[in-house]
Amino acid sequence: MVATDGRPTPKRESPAFDLSTYLKERQVQVEAALDRSLPIIYPETIYEAMRYSLLAGGKRLRPILCIATCELAGGTMEMAMPTACALEMIHTMSLIHDDLPAMDNDDYRRGQLTNHKVYGEDMAILAGDGLLAYAFEYIAAQTKGVPAERVLQVIAWLGHAVGAGGLVGGQVVDLQSEGKLDIQEETLTYIHTHKTGALLESCVVCGGILAGVTNSEMERLSRYAQNIGLAFQIIDDILDITSTQEELGKTAGKDLQAQKVTYPSLWGIETSKAKAQELIEAAKTQLEPFGEKAEPLIALAEFITSRTN
Amino acid sequence: MVATDGRPTPKRESPAFDLSTYLKERQVQVEAALDRSLPIIYPETIYEAMRYSLLAGGKRLRPILCIATCELAGGTMEMAMPTACALEMIHTMSLIHDDLPAMDNDDYRRGQLTNHKVYGEDMAILAGDGLLAYAFEYIAAQTKGVPAERVLQVIAWLGHAVGAGGLVGGQVVDLQSEGKLDIQEETLTYIHTHKTGALLESCVVCGGILAGVTNSEMERLSRYAQNIGLAFQIIDDILDITSTQEELGKTAGKDLQAQKVTYPSLWGIETSKAKAQELIEAAKTQLEPFGEKAEPLIALAEFITSRTN
Repeated sequence: MVATDGRPTPKRESPAFDLSTYLKERQVQVEAALDRSLPIIYPETIYEAMRYSLLAGGKRLRPILCIATCELAGGTMEMAMPTACALEMIHTMSLIHDDLPAMDNDDYRRGQLTNHKVYGEDMAILAGDGLLAYAFEYIAAQTKGVPAERVLQVIAWLGHAVGAGGLVGGQVVDLQSEGKLDIQEETLTYIHTHKTGALLESCVVCGGILAGVTNSEMERLSRYAQNIGLAFQIIDDILDITSTQEELGKTAGKDLQAQKVTYPSLWGIETSKAKAQELIEAAKTQLEPFGEKAEPLIALAEFITSRTN
Repeated sequence: MVATDGRPTPKRESPAFDLSTYLKERQVQVEAALDRSLPIIYPETIYEAMRYSLLAGGKRLRPILCIATCELAGGTMEMAMPTACALEMIHTMSLIHDDLPAMDNDDYRRGQLTNHKVYGEDMAILAGDGLLAYAFEYIAAQTKGVPAERVLQVIAWLGHAVGAGGLVGGQVVDLQSEGKLDIQEETLTYIHTHKTGALLESCVVCGGILAGVTNSEMERLSRYAQNIGLAFQIIDDILDITSTQEELGKTAGKDLQAQKVTYPSLWGIETSKAKAQELIEAAKTQLEPFGEKAEPLIALAEFITSRTN
């Protein structure tokens, strides 16, 4: 097999890639880096509130995607770690603000009380703001061994991914669509490619930028990320219907309750599952030219369809 | 007169600096740049909400401070404009979030309804998030003619100034101090050097970084900014007591109502005024080595004590 860029792909010689061990190792490294990133100083309450949600567990899928892509493209974990942590800070701020009474009004997240239930609404708003600002500071101040131009590109990408052209925009259309049962697939896709997809894509793109990938490699990585992002959301919608609160760690059945149109409500559960599987296959196809270096990203794509929470 | 760094200060030969004309010109330029920075696209509501507060007038003191410092240090307005706009975006997001019911619960700002009164709490939270993310994107993507390393330094500074170590931290201590009438001057100074001071200092520091000032020049500029920042807050506290809502464009007498300890409540109005004047004089002293190039910054310092809203 020859990659599209003309480089021969090396034959598989290593033993089968063990995703479970890989994820565990990376999770430990990311947890440690996140813990170190945010020491508690005066005024303690705000750092405690930020840490409460930032260190509340979770799969750390976003940081791991960023690191895996950076390594795939010839970079190191060290180059990617500040951006990886920043991605988790941004993801966490979006969860804190989404859970607020004025937004989704959720009391539980990852099996624990949401930030505002513990620290109050005012602190939760400020904890989100603090995490968002810190994410950019952290990338700018802590990234080592990467040309400054690339770091700026990462910041520009990430700012766009979280702003009105990305996550915030997706959330806006989502809020505006609540209770409307005539939402079209086009609108639903807008919501998800922005609310969830934009940040997931950023993990992969930013990992690639840090390592200095070529334009054609970046296009493949972007398409991989877009596909897994949408698959991720479809699975999320299915789990909201089929899981209990205990399995999910957050309120289940929220979409139905909020009269939200979802992929399963448009297509049914079985077709939605098949569609997610198709997207994962398409994502994996994009990685073929990278050969066995892409094993972590391939395994991560498969992990997304098999997850149960 | 010889500056402390040994360079002779040129004799004044230009006509007296006209601050009023200078401010008007700069305001027009900043308004135009802000207007261009944020076109309305889909989903329109969020861009309208962001623009509603971003373009609601105001003195544009922060962008002007940034541009004036960059020019003082040998840079150009063009180099500073993206950062200048970002500073106003960040300032605006802090106002939108501060005004929320869960925070200061304010209905009016600059004589207009606050963001959440017009767009709802959910949109106001998201508009703030969107502006904060966009500020960093805008600096990273739009700054031209400045080495990338300096732009990263600006982003790191600004991230710190708005986060838990700056504006957010000041807001936290402010909220925690409400209703406590035994607040010490030390705590009050912490609140103001962080809630207002950190961002004002950033305007000056970032302008200096963009132009590539020396370390000793940066120290002087920082001290100038810290002094005018504190003076600015003292005047703000005085105006809250002595002004009507019409003059102020926002609810007057809020501090007394919220049982907030302020400088005038600690020192009385006359001593507070004298203290602000002292700080302005100290600020101006820091600028002496820069000679007549510092005229805009000197005039801006004086403007702060003479303002009435």
